[in-house]
Amino acid sequence: MAQQFWTDDVSALLRVREGFDLREIDPDARPGTEARKHEGERELVRATPELRVLQEKLFAQSRLGDQRRLLVVLQAMDAAGKGGIVNHVFAQTEPYGLALTAFKAPTEEERSHDFLWRVEPRVPGPGIIGVFDRSHYEDVLVQKVRGYAPPEEIERRYGAIVDFERRITAEGVRVVKIMLHISPEEQAERLLSRLDDPEKYWKYNPGDVDERLLWPAYMEAFQTAIDRTDSPEAPWYVVPANAKWYARVAVQRIVIDELAKLSPHWPEPDFDVAAERQRVVDSQDLRWP
Amino acid sequence: MAQQFWTDDVSALLRVREGFDLREIDPDARPGTEARKHEGERELVRATPELRVLQEKLFAQSRLGDQRRLLVVLQAMDAAGKGGIVNHVFAQTEPYGLALTAFKAPTEEERSHDFLWRVEPRVPGPGIIGVFDRSHYEDVLVQKVRGYAPPEEIERRYGAIVDFERRITAEGVRVVKIMLHISPEEQAERLLSRLDDPEKYWKYNPGDVDERLLWPAYMEAFQTAIDRTDSPEAPWYVVPANAKWYARVAVQRIVIDELAKLSPHWPEPDFDVAAERQRVVDSQDLRWP
Repeated sequence: MAQQFWTDDVSALLRVREGFDLREIDPDARPGTEARKHEGERELVRATPELRVLQEKLFAQSRLGDQRRLLVVLQAMDAAGKGGIVNHVFAQTEPYGLALTAFKAPTEEERSHDFLWRVEPRVPGPGIIGVFDRSHYEDVLVQKVRGYAPPEEIERRYGAIVDFERRITAEGVRVVKIMLHISPEEQAERLLSRLDDPEKYWKYNPGDVDERLLWPAYMEAFQTAIDRTDSPEAPWYVVPANAKWYARVAVQRIVIDELAKLSPHWPEPDFDVAAERQRVVDSQDLRWP
Repeated sequence: MAQQFWTDDVSALLRVREGFDLREIDPDARPGTEARKHEGERELVRATPELRVLQEKLFAQSRLGDQRRLLVVLQAMDAAGKGGIVNHVFAQTEPYGLALTAFKAPTEEERSHDFLWRVEPRVPGPGIIGVFDRSHYEDVLVQKVRGYAPPEEIERRYGAIVDFERRITAEGVRVVKIMLHISPEEQAERLLSRLDDPEKYWKYNPGDVDERLLWPAYMEAFQTAIDRTDSPEAPWYVVPANAKWYARVAVQRIVIDELAKLSPHWPEPDFDVAAERQRVVDSQDLRWP
């Protein structure tokens, strides 16, 4: 049972609150559980069917017109484990009900439009869990830290993001934003491990070190972005992520809790079940070949 | 070992050959193996890492400019098990390297364009395995059987499909087309099972019985579509699918064999590994908070 693993309401513990200060979050912490790694891995597997059923209900009810859906935004420094979250949490759900978008540095065409232009078409449709690996928040993180956009434009974007998220919320999208929080020491270890293994070289990008050197500026940009865009309708969660197993099981629980709030349910049939049974039974002897 | 499960080259056995006659394919057959269900389920799990590594290499090499990718087209009568194939074969791979598209009845906008208009943007990008659950083949199957398009337009489409697949092949897309072949009796059982379970009602569509009644016409349309569009560059496979476990493990093997032909490999790094290690090591003490 979940109660055995979680000793407290992890969603509430990781939810950003009034007066939130990123500096107080310990990337090594494991709020809500006293369990160890192997128990965490077991809990992840145990709760997967719980997540799948909620997702399948969400997907099923959309077929009869329900507009609700979930958008999970993942933001983090490089090597913080976004890919692992996608693989171990989201990829365990029904692929038809999942829409994953990995946002890269904007193309020339994308740069010629407003920063939300490329995001709009990736908002999940009814019944779908959308996952953004990076997102419109890059436009107030790297763009701010690197000075790719002037301060007044960054300022404008906070408001534009709030407006955008409010609008899609009204359309039926539950927006959930998650920062995976690692320490610079942990990042160094993970980058070095990519450089230790020829099968992982392709995951390494020299530019990651350039960003790494700007760590304090990034943390300040995260703090500001969270302060300016957190709301009850589109909440931020900050998940300590030095322990990969903890981050995965915590994100899984947050997603389950968020989905459960949508109370998805198996839709009633919009046809006569008995009559349809008879139609199938009657349609035998189709004589082929 | 794969040899223990497969006693013959299943890809070669299921590959459509000169003089192919759909009427001679037994949906209950299990070419290439004498194993039973539990062994098939074990083989599926055993071979999954083999598939994942091939896919990850394909994805990795695309990062350095390689254009190759795979497009798997799944076509079948309703309830033939496309969804199970997606869940048990493709969803076991890396989600970043997978692009699933489920084509529905065309929207009004889609109908106002050529039938390939909606397909073009769904062709997978370099390094990606694209899966089409239904496809442009619906435009020579349901559209033909139902008479939604006149015969001369259907005739034109066979050629247009061949041209389209030849063009994307030249761009680096390996096109593989798979028909899951069930019997009408097996379909009836599966439709009835959906009507037995309130949690599956949403998967049932009364229209499926309308199509079912046209079984012989559909089989003829499949035969013609395969005859007209099979080629060494864009081959058809017909997979007996009355046994779900067989269809899954056979499709998995076909996909592995097709990926292996692309010989994907871990790319060489385009940076100096030792110098990058030093950069990471030197970037300590980032003093935050």
